[in-house]
Amino acid sequence: MANQKKPRNVLVIHGPNLNMLGKREPDIYGDMTLEVINAQLLELGKKQGLTVEVFQSNHEGNIVDKIQEVAGTCSGIIINPAAFTHTSIAIRDALLLLDIPIVEIHLSNIYKREPFRHKSMIADISTAQITGFGPDGYTMALEGIVKMIG
Amino acid sequence: MANQKKPRNVLVIHGPNLNMLGKREPDIYGDMTLEVINAQLLELGKKQGLTVEVFQSNHEGNIVDKIQEVAGTCSGIIINPAAFTHTSIAIRDALLLLDIPIVEIHLSNIYKREPFRHKSMIADISTAQITGFGPDGYTMALEGIVKMIG
Amino acid sequence: MANQKKPRNVLVIHGPNLNMLGKREPDIYGDMTLEVINAQLLELGKKQGLTVEVFQSNHEGNIVDKIQEVAGTCSGIIINPAAFTHTSIAIRDALLLLDIPIVEIHLSNIYKREPFRHKSMIADISTAQITGFGPDGYTMALEGIVKMIG
Amino acid sequence: MANQKKPRNVLVIHGPNLNMLGKREPDIYGDMTLEVINAQLLELGKKQGLTVEVFQSNHEGNIVDKIQEVAGTCSGIIINPAAFTHTSIAIRDALLLLDIPIVEIHLSNIYKREPFRHKSMIADISTAQITGFGPDGYTMALEGIVKMIG
Amino acid sequence: MANQKKPRNVLVIHGPNLNMLGKREPDIYGDMTLEVINAQLLELGKKQGLTVEVFQSNHEGNIVDKIQEVAGTCSGIIINPAAFTHTSIAIRDALLLLDIPIVEIHLSNIYKREPFRHKSMIADISTAQITGFGPDGYTMALEGIVKMIG
Amino acid sequence: MANQKKPRNVLVIHGPNLNMLGKREPDIYGDMTLEVINAQLLELGKKQGLTVEVFQSNHEGNIVDKIQEVAGTCSGIIINPAAFTHTSIAIRDALLLLDIPIVEIHLSNIYKREPFRHKSMIADISTAQITGFGPDGYTMALEGIVKMIG
Amino acid sequence: MANQKKPRNVLVIHGPNLNMLGKREPDIYGDMTLEVINAQLLELGKKQGLTVEVFQSNHEGNIVDKIQEVAGTCSGIIINPAAFTHTSIAIRDALLLLDIPIVEIHLSNIYKREPFRHKSMIADISTAQITGFGPDGYTMALEGIVKMIG
Amino acid sequence: MANQKKPRNVLVIHGPNLNMLGKREPDIYGDMTLEVINAQLLELGKKQGLTVEVFQSNHEGNIVDKIQEVAGTCSGIIINPAAFTHTSIAIRDALLLLDIPIVEIHLSNIYKREPFRHKSMIADISTAQITGFGPDGYTMALEGIVKMIG
Amino acid sequence: MANQKKPRNVLVIHGPNLNMLGKREPDIYGDMTLEVINAQLLELGKKQGLTVEVFQSNHEGNIVDKIQEVAGTCSGIIINPAAFTHTSIAIRDALLLLDIPIVEIHLSNIYKREPFRHKSMIADISTAQITGFGPDGYTMALEGIVKMIG
Amino acid sequence: MANQKKPRNVLVIHGPNLNMLGKREPDIYGDMTLEVINAQLLELGKKQGLTVEVFQSNHEGNIVDKIQEVAGTCSGIIINPAAFTHTSIAIRDALLLLDIPIVEIHLSNIYKREPFRHKSMIADISTAQITGFGPDGYTMALEGIVKMIG
Amino acid sequence: MANQKKPRNVLVIHGPNLNMLGKREPDIYGDMTLEVINAQLLELGKKQGLTVEVFQSNHEGNIVDKIQEVAGTCSGIIINPAAFTHTSIAIRDALLLLDIPIVEIHLSNIYKREPFRHKSMIADISTAQITGFGPDGYTMALEGIVKMIG
Amino acid sequence: MANQKKPRNVLVIHGPNLNMLGKREPDIYGDMTLEVINAQLLELGKKQGLTVEVFQSNHEGNIVDKIQEVAGTCSGIIINPAAFTHTSIAIRDALLLLDIPIVEIHLSNIYKREPFRHKSMIADISTAQITGFGPDGYTMALEGIVKMIG
Repeated sequence: MANQKKPRNVLVIHGPNLNMLGKREPDIYGDMTLEVINAQLLELGKKQGLTVEVFQSNHEGNIVDKIQEVAGTCSGIIINPAAFTHTSIAIRDALLLLDIPIVEIHLSNIYKREPFRHKSMIADISTAQITGFGPDGYTMALEGIVKMIG
Repeated sequence: MANQKKPRNVLVIHGPNLNMLGKREPDIYGDMTLEVINAQLLELGKKQGLTVEVFQSNHEGNIVDKIQEVAGTCSGIIINPAAFTHTSIAIRDALLLLDIPIVEIHLSNIYKREPFRHKSMIADISTAQITGFGPDGYTMALEGIVKMIG
Repeated sequence: MANQKKPRNVLVIHGPNLNMLGKREPDIYGDMTLEVINAQLLELGKKQGLTVEVFQSNHEGNIVDKIQEVAGTCSGIIINPAAFTHTSIAIRDALLLLDIPIVEIHLSNIYKREPFRHKSMIADISTAQITGFGPDGYTMALEGIVKMIG
Repeated sequence: MANQKKPRNVLVIHGPNLNMLGKREPDIYGDMTLEVINAQLLELGKKQGLTVEVFQSNHEGNIVDKIQEVAGTCSGIIINPAAFTHTSIAIRDALLLLDIPIVEIHLSNIYKREPFRHKSMIADISTAQITGFGPDGYTMALEGIVKMIG
Repeated sequence: MANQKKPRNVLVIHGPNLNMLGKREPDIYGDMTLEVINAQLLELGKKQGLTVEVFQSNHEGNIVDKIQEVAGTCSGIIINPAAFTHTSIAIRDALLLLDIPIVEIHLSNIYKREPFRHKSMIADISTAQITGFGPDGYTMALEGIVKMIG
Repeated sequence: MANQKKPRNVLVIHGPNLNMLGKREPDIYGDMTLEVINAQLLELGKKQGLTVEVFQSNHEGNIVDKIQEVAGTCSGIIINPAAFTHTSIAIRDALLLLDIPIVEIHLSNIYKREPFRHKSMIADISTAQITGFGPDGYTMALEGIVKMIG
Repeated sequence: MANQKKPRNVLVIHGPNLNMLGKREPDIYGDMTLEVINAQLLELGKKQGLTVEVFQSNHEGNIVDKIQEVAGTCSGIIINPAAFTHTSIAIRDALLLLDIPIVEIHLSNIYKREPFRHKSMIADISTAQITGFGPDGYTMALEGIVKMIG
Repeated sequence: MANQKKPRNVLVIHGPNLNMLGKREPDIYGDMTLEVINAQLLELGKKQGLTVEVFQSNHEGNIVDKIQEVAGTCSGIIINPAAFTHTSIAIRDALLLLDIPIVEIHLSNIYKREPFRHKSMIADISTAQITGFGPDGYTMALEGIVKMIG
Repeated sequence: MANQKKPRNVLVIHGPNLNMLGKREPDIYGDMTLEVINAQLLELGKKQGLTVEVFQSNHEGNIVDKIQEVAGTCSGIIINPAAFTHTSIAIRDALLLLDIPIVEIHLSNIYKREPFRHKSMIADISTAQITGFGPDGYTMALEGIVKMIG
Repeated sequence: MANQKKPRNVLVIHGPNLNMLGKREPDIYGDMTLEVINAQLLELGKKQGLTVEVFQSNHEGNIVDKIQEVAGTCSGIIINPAAFTHTSIAIRDALLLLDIPIVEIHLSNIYKREPFRHKSMIADISTAQITGFGPDGYTMALEGIVKMIG
Repeated sequence: MANQKKPRNVLVIHGPNLNMLGKREPDIYGDMTLEVINAQLLELGKKQGLTVEVFQSNHEGNIVDKIQEVAGTCSGIIINPAAFTHTSIAIRDALLLLDIPIVEIHLSNIYKREPFRHKSMIADISTAQITGFGPDGYTMALEGIVKMIG
Repeated sequence: MANQKKPRNVLVIHGPNLNMLGKREPDIYGDMTLEVINAQLLELGKKQGLTVEVFQSNHEGNIVDKIQEVAGTCSGIIINPAAFTHTSIAIRDALLLLDIPIVEIHLSNIYKREPFRHKSMIADISTAQITGFGPDGYTMALEGIVKMIG
């Protein structure tokens, strides 16, 4: 699905409210901030010899714009769509434009939460999912995507 | 749930299309504009000795941004999410970051409208609801929230 | 919908088990009794220059009888149907006989309770709803209905 | 529904990801770009003696803003809401503010796609629908709307 | 199912709010009162040589009591359960105790009303139904039941 | 809804398989044939001074044709659509072309049969229904429709 | 959950139509009357050294009143709500006021009956259930509740 | 999908009750008769240099027969199945035998009508749909199909 | 269920579009025509000493007529209702008039097709089903029915 | 249903994970082990003069085997199918082979647990149910079954 | 799909409780034992020149094991999964490992039984189904599978 | 949740048919056998200084037995329940007995498969999920669980 000629750029997308990680309700979401998570990802990317870009937005449209922007130059996407997981067909459609590995990630086990969080609009078009490992899930996803893109 | 040390700031959020109030279809929505409603709220706030901020947007992301912005400094929220009432988990998640009284308000009786308007994504995380009182509902909500925050 | 010629009588109906308010499980329902709530309503009515009648019953049929009895002489109804909210078409039908403002009120936020409490048989025929303000909701309802009936 | 005094301006709205038309996956979406489609519409408009404005956004809020902006001056709307077709009550509410012909258009036959694409949030408030004619559908819609607005 | 030895007594039961017939909203329910309908039934009964008893209550329990009371001595029941049609298993159970013809009657066509009125809890245990003939339905029902009980 | 100037013609439509009445399974459907029922209707019509036409078909299209044929000259329809009750929108649409009383009739209590027989496609556009009275239902329907058309 | 200081009074509630037990349809419900069942319960209570009160009503409101009346003085409730099992939220709410063992009992196996009898409105707030043992179920329930209240 | 060697014949199928167009309820369906629509289609066909055949039937079987008859010689079908849209798998199956463009057309916006009209049995096997343009939709469909068959 | 006195006639009914078997889309339906299948059935019938009649129609009404026609003289029915399998209650009702073995047959495995083909309106009133054996299924059905009728 | 000639053997079946009773999570399941429960049952059986056999398995197939094994020699079954309650049609089918009293028992009130535990695959083929009495339920069941088998 | 090189071995799998055939409830299941059915199959296999293996188990796991065991050496499977028809995804998955004809068989017409028996977990992955022919169905299935494997 | 005193043993459970991995349909499941996967896990465990036990069974009961066996001595479970994911409450109940991290893993993206595979009976009681990474998912899970148990 991927070879050496493809660029080795990975985009990590954080959906709405994830910018508040570690800033409020640490007993639920832990006290690790998004800044720390992003730093870990950039460092791991460097170690793996690939470019990692991180992006967060509370705006569905911005996420769609971003995905369109990297179409053709990106070799893998890690996305935690947060609330948009369950509602955004626009993000789904943007992802459908790509032909690269997509890893869907959730910090907490969404199956322990409200029923409307059990349905993901992108699960069936993602390559893989990681759920419930907390911030560790991001680095696991990056390691997993590296294996996929070779 | 609230005491004197807490700041006494109330944010009033108006969802999409409410900026058109009183400008089109007055037979349905009345002829009172949002500007008039906001003026009444600011005046009542002054009388009650609390700061009232009003905010309207047609953009879900902007409303999420606004809620995040006031997190920690706001003592109560009055929100009429309009169309987002029924679709936005992102606004729900933003409100979940707060630990203050939230009053959900609708101008018209949503139970007389289309079935998809009967379900609110924030009803179960709000403190209280006021529906069907027209513009009066806003001042009722503000008076109600004042009693809650003491 | 109402003018000065109409009588200014408001009937307040309390449904089943509300007579136990403040008598059991005060941590859930608060320690204010129905007697106190009723006294507040009568006093507020006097201040507003209108007649307030209060009525409580555990019997669906009695509530239907009462609504029929005031048909034609009453200018507004405030009703907390309690358990009958979700089951009584007979009360709905009785209310349908009237052509006056009807305010549905619930002490607690019914959307935080069991799913079968999320559906109201009278919501779509009421003029307005107030939910989750506790006993304050009753006086808010009375003030709201006064504005409606002029 | 329309007469000679009404302005003859038609707004064509393209929803999220339609800016990518002809740029990726040409085997699915064809190789005609949105720019070409828009040029055809402007030309046809000129020939029909009416002003055609085209607008694309990946942001639901922008589309709502745009519809509000043309309220009162626009004589017809052609809208392909793309992913927002199935999720946006805000766009529906904005369209409800207008009292002009609205034509909903989809390039591909949405009934051959995922079940969640079979339900349109604006179908019952549109005047007409055109589905499955590819880019030709836009010019058909413009010709159809011309007949409606006289 | 019936023979000459059986008593020829018919009980006519009117459910909640039917006592208001002809007294409010004559444009919907006509201006014939329940008293007039009952008089017609008694007269027709006399003509047919059978005893007709009429009974109205807004109390489900009273209707159950009444059905139990006539068990064993009644030869046919005509029942318009009104609002209880859709909610009362207790009336269903009381009717199940009998082994006589039961005719369910509704003044208006219940299939033109709210969806929750389309389901009758007694339809499958009744012998026959008459719907939408207005007050005439009662005399039709009585004539029909006379043929059944011989 | 009707007056003396209107023609007093009633069409009675029998749906599929009703031509077999009384010929097979008499223990279920009784031993009265459709011919006998029709003769009773014609006789009663003569007595009432109106023209009764009877029509039976196993073909949905023939029933639609027949209804179209009498449009404008018929003053009332009695229809037992049998199996088509639950499936035919075409018959519904044909009946919608008329503006005369329509009585839906079923010989047996359809609510005691399979669930798919509980839903009628014409119930909400009929004027009235008679169910479960066996062949007597037809003459009851004719008498009822006479009262309606005056 | 209970100790020696608590009064040892048990209330046995029989719902609608149970007063007809043994009087009609003995092949279904057996020929034991409610009077005999009650006598057995009183006798067993005496033997166990506790006060047993029996109560039957066809009126939902009366049952609610009764439960409220014993609140605070009763140490256990055995309730066969009969038809109200499936419809009464008011009885559920009344039982929720108590903090004592509640045993739900049904004479026949409700899972062999109509689907609407499979759902109990009080099952999830009862302590235990006994179904299908006929009249013996009552004495089993009383013995079981004795063990619970010590 | 089509080339010059293929015959350029288009069959236009009108489903049940469409023969009544313009003859009854002109305020709903307009006053244009099916004869006029057909004449327009034949004329437009002549202008476009293709053979247009028109066909109407109230009989599902006749429509199936007709579709089978043209299999292999027809280059495009325009079909308004009217009531059969929602019920006929037989017409769907007949259309599945063909491998030519199929345009489904409805005069009125079916999404504004009863819920059972929102589901089409042929939508997912049609090439395109036109809805809500009234009689104009037919000529639009013919122009659209001409482009498809080249 | 059958004995020597009963006639040994078997009717084979082919539903809509089956007359096209082997004529179009041979890769799906095979290239065996209905004529060949029928010839095989007649031959097998001759060998087994029974009369086989074959019948095909695209008209539901014709199939109902045919079933009525053979009532009383036919000893077994093999029916492939094709599209009518899922929609025709009229055919079901006609079959219910008979008291002979009925074998439902489908050429292809209907469970591999669209969900609306998984439900048969005659499955629960048939004696047996054969699905997915292609044309061989018919001869298997005939052999099976021979064993049933002795 | 039973007499002295029938053997008086009762089989008690414990489903999966019940062998862990009292060994883990005593705060939920209590600290009484299955061994103790079984000993109580054997002792009570001895006192009642009947043979009690106890059987536990985590394997659905073993439970089916066991039920088949006792078919014909067993006079009553007490079964707590635990997790298999909600999933095993095989156990249901095995029980259907027997014609003896079957008592379904659950230690805890299954209606307070996850929704998928509210449905029992054997409830409608059991004679009776006991739920929520904890280990006491077993001895109650045995006493109840003794009365049934005489 | 099959040729002479493939081994001609057919495995016949009987699911849970089928070992009891003919031993209990002969009025329902007939008095033919599984041993007799198996003997008939072995004999027919010999006549057809192929090896038939028969296998019965009440254990889902054993059936999965057995299917895995024959993978690669078996040329056709006849399976009556009995209760596992409706619950076992594991058997479905095991069958998915094979690429040979699979015939699903049921002795009785499962569509006349409980609704949960109408859904088969293997219907859509089987080649063909035979239902309702009793024990004859097995030999029909074997003859059918012989034709498939050539 | 875990500390140094806890044993560092991890049990890896493979559900039904996973023993066939790499042996059949390599294009779907890849050509890596379960033996190779297990070897990788044992090696990684050695490297991480913990004991890894691997277990595969096609028998639900065996998996329940195994989980019970390790209760109290195991510090983490990785489980790919395969087909049992969607059906086994018994495995869920066994896992509920433990109080250690549980990682649910699936080789392929289950959301791209049949709808009945989208629901997991253990998702809401697992700590985390890994889906769609193929065999790599196992080592990712082991690394993830190591971080959890410290």
